[in-house]
Amino acid sequence: MSLRVLGIDPGLTRCGVGIVDVDARRRGRLVHVDVLRTPPDLAIERRLLAIGEGIAALLDEHRPDRVALERVFAQHNVRSVMGVAQISGVAMHESARRGLAVALHTPSEVKAAVTGYGSADKAQVASMVARILGLTEAPRPADAADALAIALCNAWGGGGASVVSAEGGTPAQRAWRAAEKSAGARRLAP
Amino acid sequence: MSLRVLGIDPGLTRCGVGIVDVDARRRGRLVHVDVLRTPPDLAIERRLLAIGEGIAALLDEHRPDRVALERVFAQHNVRSVMGVAQISGVAMHESARRGLAVALHTPSEVKAAVTGYGSADKAQVASMVARILGLTEAPRPADAADALAIALCNAWGGGGASVVSAEGGTPAQRAWRAAEKSAGARRLAP
Repeated sequence: MSLRVLGIDPGLTRCGVGIVDVDARRRGRLVHVDVLRTPPDLAIERRLLAIGEGIAALLDEHRPDRVALERVFAQHNVRSVMGVAQISGVAMHESARRGLAVALHTPSEVKAAVTGYGSADKAQVASMVARILGLTEAPRPADAADALAIALCNAWGGGGASVVSAEGGTPAQRAWRAAEKSAGARRLAP
Repeated sequence: MSLRVLGIDPGLTRCGVGIVDVDARRRGRLVHVDVLRTPPDLAIERRLLAIGEGIAALLDEHRPDRVALERVFAQHNVRSVMGVAQISGVAMHESARRGLAVALHTPSEVKAAVTGYGSADKAQVASMVARILGLTEAPRPADAADALAIALCNAWGGGGASVVSAEGGTPAQRAWRAAEKSAGARRLAP
């Protein structure tokens, strides 16, 4: 028995999509990873349509149990944040149309879940994602690795800390810590 | 021959939707107006689904030629702006799925188009919308009137000033100015 999660790193220019299966022992397996792209000179509604259709096709083909997105914040670039929020709206809508629940995770939750460190950089996240899923190299570009990290974060029940406290010291958790250690994930003081 | 436009004032709690027919003489006729609502305690993806289905039903029933939305800016309330952007994304996606073009208009463009004054208040906008469409009273709530104003702004070709310069002094334009005048639309110094 395993849980299948679609993780989405929303964006108009590059939208990372990653699907993982996670079993009862918390082991992850890569099902699919891709980056959906649209050209900046296309009309906004056409860009939303293209990415929306891409997400709909993944939902119908791979039938995930849950969908997880990176939570959007209003950051420096307002224009880009609006595009991210619009894509998120479309992704949530397509998921809800299929009866799927959607979870939102903050970037620091996702980083903490896969690297043990909420301020990990993109290379650390990509490296840990590759290790967890047994890939020979890190998924590229970063949006692809981020989407898989979002899916893993969700499958494991959110932020790393809450997972540990909720599930206690299982064999999977020990295996996970060993993987973290061997990956040399840097743990810096907060 | 007339142009049918669906105007949308996007929001998660209240989403104004208004459809107008505008003829070659720029006269407007009300086709449909409503406010789609979702409760704040519903999951975000369910709220997006409910409003998205409402918009899809309007598109299929009334078959507008174009769709116009209020352009979203990152304002004070970041949380509400994200909801507005998500709804906008869903509305644009549903429109593009049906091959429709989507236009975005700023609040001041919309106000200028219907009242001649880009900083008009909500009561002035609602009053002018009622007069233009020959309604006995102003559409309520404000979101409904705003949606109709967005549709009229779009049907007339955007902001009031650009319409005047593009089309010159037509009979419709004179009729329009007379309507504005008799409505007592206040024109304040900018």
